[in-house]
Formats: sequence, structure tokens, C-alpha cells
Amino acid sequence: MNGEQTLIDRIRRAIPSQSRRRARSPAGLRLGIGDDAALISPRCGLDSVITCDAFLENVHFLPDVHSPGSVGYKSLARATSDLAAMGAAPRYFLLTLALPARRTGQWLDAFLAGMSRAAREYGLLLIGGDTSCQPTVAISITVIGEIAPGAALTRSGARPGDRIFVSGTLGAAQLGLQLIRRGLHRQTRWKPFLRQHCYPSIRIFLGQFLAVRHLASAMMDLSDGLSTDLSRLCATSRVGARIWLDHLPAVAVPPSLRTRGFDPITIALHGGDDYELLFTVPRRLAKKIPAQHRGVRLTPIGEITRERKISLVGKDDRATPLLSLGWDHFRR
Amino acid sequence: MNGEQTLIDRIRRAIPSQSRRRARSPAGLRLGIGDDAALISPRCGLDSVITCDAFLENVHFLPDVHSPGSVGYKSLARATSDLAAMGAAPRYFLLTLALPARRTGQWLDAFLAGMSRAAREYGLLLIGGDTSCQPTVAISITVIGEIAPGAALTRSGARPGDRIFVSGTLGAAQLGLQLIRRGLHRQTRWKPFLRQHCYPSIRIFLGQFLAVRHLASAMMDLSDGLSTDLSRLCATSRVGARIWLDHLPAVAVPPSLRTRGFDPITIALHGGDDYELLFTVPRRLAKKIPAQHRGVRLTPIGEITRERKISLVGKDDRATPLLSLGWDHFRR
Repeated sequence: MNGEQTLIDRIRRAIPSQSRRRARSPAGLRLGIGDDAALISPRCGLDSVITCDAFLENVHFLPDVHSPGSVGYKSLARATSDLAAMGAAPRYFLLTLALPARRTGQWLDAFLAGMSRAAREYGLLLIGGDTSCQPTVAISITVIGEIAPGAALTRSGARPGDRIFVSGTLGAAQLGLQLIRRGLHRQTRWKPFLRQHCYPSIRIFLGQFLAVRHLASAMMDLSDGLSTDLSRLCATSRVGARIWLDHLPAVAVPPSLRTRGFDPITIALHGGDDYELLFTVPRRLAKKIPAQHRGVRLTPIGEITRERKISLVGKDDRATPLLSLGWDHFRR
Repeated sequence: MNGEQTLIDRIRRAIPSQSRRRARSPAGLRLGIGDDAALISPRCGLDSVITCDAFLENVHFLPDVHSPGSVGYKSLARATSDLAAMGAAPRYFLLTLALPARRTGQWLDAFLAGMSRAAREYGLLLIGGDTSCQPTVAISITVIGEIAPGAALTRSGARPGDRIFVSGTLGAAQLGLQLIRRGLHRQTRWKPFLRQHCYPSIRIFLGQFLAVRHLASAMMDLSDGLSTDLSRLCATSRVGARIWLDHLPAVAVPPSLRTRGFDPITIALHGGDDYELLFTVPRRLAKKIPAQHRGVRLTPIGEITRERKISLVGKDDRATPLLSLGWDHFRR
């Protein structure tokens, strides 16, 4: 058997997938992995939600630092987070995988185990993909979900007066990345702080809760940092925002790291990779947002303004401009 | 404005796309490029067909040899060819693009112009994607099409006695690749022989014709060479095949290249990148296959056998095994 086919068979065995037609299935997967393309019979009356995301060696991960299990898990998690950000239910994914030959052994097995874990958590079936051989690992993932028409939450619906909420904690992933950048990640006591960076939690159930109940006016996931992502949401909605500094659910930074310059507020404002949900809620509905959903804290952090600038408001009520200092691949 | 947003805006302007909802559209694109994910309202009663394909610098193309326009055109063509191979109508695509900073100027403009040309030819709308910065160009494309339930042609339907057909000419792309490998591609007289390698024709209308009329029992596109792809189709259908050597529509190789070792039959049997369609037809329907479709020649080249081996039959009726010598990314 040729090498590429062996590789495809290993992927198929490792990750939840289905290659054959389900007999007489009125909707769902008709043909999965293994042919020229996958065939899906969409459920009538539901919209399809589609997104894709790259995860590249030396850009998104470092093979000496990030375990193959983390690479597999996180690459699928961050792609799926874009579905959570619309309020959609994840269904299927396709995996485009480029690998050097030296990564086709144990590294690949651990990578597939991590990806399989994420696929099972999110209820995703692998239905297709493409493999090739190149000197560095490159992963590109397409995720497909479904949602009731009219329920999807986009970036364009925020209106002046809406309350701004975030889920969970801000900056946990960035704290892990900074520990890596300072070479502190190999110290046992800091390992727990790497969890959100390596195995991010994403907010699928919260996204669906907000979409199905029509509680939010706009939503996105925080992948590039609050300051950058909020400015994108505001630009798309043609509004501005005021963020209440002392309401930010910033990551808890141990005192011994604070003294080394790890500042929780800076990390919470500009750190990427959190995959928490940022959403806006019409003021009359804000009371309906629970303090937590399935154990995930929901925090009001500010309000949408008509004036199209983004400000940070301190306890003294003084506003300063919030600059977008989050992640940008092509910043010069 | 940040660099990544500027890049996304350039892509959006260059390639047919649609970012806003079509008001009251009962089916079709609800939300295109620019949000966390795209939203499609599938037409009730049609199946969705989805495939993805990578196109990588130094693996699938060489930046010193292949023009950026060819890279843009071919990367989308070969992904869309997988839809043609199912008989589906192309509708939407997503583009994951990783680029070094030095390729974000004129190179990118020409790349996008080539991709846009292919998108217009195939009727594809860009609905999403992802951009990042890395030292080499990496393109990953997801294409989505639609087809009537039961019409899709897979690799698994070939039965003993079926006639085997191919469209067009075999080996034209491989001839171009060999000219490049021998350093002959810069000579003006050989430039016309690079066309199918750089700007491949794909067979969307033929695929739909065969699927809608239920003329074929199995189909795939020839991306890795006849010998390799036919063995895949036969393995999936659990059958074998006899190929009639003197029926092969091999590329015409000029005598001055033949004397340099360019053998048309070897190139036609094992050369990849043709994107012609390989399909099988029940014997009773073989007469219904026209000699050409929209100017593309259709040639019977052999028959499916119960015995699960693949043979090459010469004029003297002697059969020799046909080895899979086409492209394999992970051959050791």
C-alpha cells in the first residue's frame, strides 16, 4: 500500500469519522472521508455555518514547546470556536495536513489523539481532508455546523446602549504564552498556568444558549485579544465602546510573577488565544444574562456607545483610548 | 488600519465575494466573508458537496518557475476539480492563505487575479478564510458545491464489465512538469506545452452531464496519474481493470522531445495533475457516451474486471501488470 493511503487510514482510525452512507438517512452524512469529496444532506430549515483556520509550526506553535497532543487539540478547538461565536452546533470537519516525514511516527499518533479528544468533546465527525509532505507542520481545518435561520449572532448587531459581556477569564492563555517566552514553562510550579494556552476551553454551549434564546445582539470569540477583537466588532457594527477597567475578569497572576512584570490588566486587555466569547446584550435583556452558564462566569465589562471610539474607563471615571495591541499577523 | 485587515480587504476586493445578507433570499448565501464564519442556507432537497486541497510552495509549485497568476488559478482549479469528479455544481469557497511579508505586494495581486479568473470561470463565491504570515506560501482551499440526492458519482460504483473512459488528453500536465525539471521551460518554443500544467482545464460541465443523466457507475478526477488513481478507484469498488494500451489518448509529444526521452505512453500512464475525469460506464450505457462533450474528447480505454488486478493490454493482447507509479506524497 502506498504511503499516503497508509497515512489516511491512520487518520481515519484515530479520529471519529464515517466513510459509508447511512442507509435511508433522510438527512446527515451521505458520504464521508475517502472519496473525492464529502456529501452532506443538510437538514431542511437549518442554515449551514462554515469556517476555516490555519495552525502553523513556528507561527502558532513551536514543536519543542508544544506537545503534539496540544497541537492536535488546539488546532481543532480554535477552528470550532468560530462556530461557537455564531451560536452554531458543530457537526463536521475537514483536515488539511502537511507534515515532514520525521513527524509521521509517534508525533502524528499523539497529534491525532489530541485532535480526536477535541472532536469527541465537540461532537465533530471528520469527513475529508488532504495530506502532503513538506519541511514544517501546517494544519488547516474547515469546520461545518448548523443553526436555525435567524439565530446566528454576527459582529454587526451591536447598538448604542447595549451592555458588553465576556465569558470566563481574560488573559489565561497569554499568561501561558508569556511563561513560554520567558523560558519559565519547564518549571513544574508554572505548568498549571499553561493549560488554557495549550488546551483551550471553548464556549460551544454558551454560544448556542445566547443564540437560541435571542439574548445577544452581536457576538464573536476572543482570538486576538480583547482590544483588537472589540475594535473589530465595533467597526462592523459602526459603534464605539466604553470598557470598565475594574470590571475586567482578568486572570489571577501569582505575586511572584507580578514582580517579574506580568501585569494582569495588560494581559487581559491585549492577550490573544483566550477563545472566550465577547457579546453585546440590549440593555432591557441584560438582567436575563445569568452570572454563570454551565460553570462559566459571565461578566458585564462595559457598554456600546454611539461615538465610534473605544475607551477604557477607570474607577475615577476618567476615559483613556484603548489601543488595539492584540495579535496581527501582518503588522509592520 | 492593521495589516491583516488591509490584506483581507484586498482579497475581498480582488475575488468575487459577497459580505452581506441578501434580503429575503430563501436559499443561498446569508453571510459571507468578514465575520467569524459564513452562513449558507442550503436549498432544500439538494445535497452539499465539500472538499479541501492544499497547494504549497516547494511542494506543489516553485515560486521561481510558476507565475503567481498560475499559483492562484491552479490552486482553486485543482480543489474545484474534486467537485467535478462528483458531478456537483461549484458554489462557494474558503481560502486559507499563509504568506511571507515579501509576497504581500505585486505577487499577491497577481495571485489574486489568477484565483479570481478561476472563481469567475467556475461560478464560485469566496465566503471566508484565514490569513497568516510564515516564510513560505501555503494555500489551503475548501470548495462547497451542490448536487441532487443520489446523483453524485463516487469511486465505489464500478462493476465488472463496465467500460472505463477518460476525458481529454493524458499526460499534458506531466509533459509541462518534465520540461520544467529539465530546465527547458524558458525556451519560447516549449511554452505552449506548459499550459495544462500551469492553468489546468477542469471538467465541471462534463461531470454534471454524467451525474445528472446517470450515465456513469463511478468517477474520480485524475490528479496523481492514471496508474495510481485507477488503482484507487478499483480498490474502492473492489474490482480490477484491463487498460487497452493503444486506446490511450496520450499527449502528443514533439519528435525532438521524444528523442530526449519524453515517452508519451509513460507520461500518459503515470503523469499527474491532468484533472481529466476517469469514469466507468455500464456496458449497456456505453453507446450513450458521446465521442466528445463541449469539445472535450471522451475515450474508452479499457474495462472493469472481477479479478482484482490492473493490467495493461497491448495490441498483441498480452497483459502486463500496471504498477501505480503516479504521485504519492509519502512514498518512502
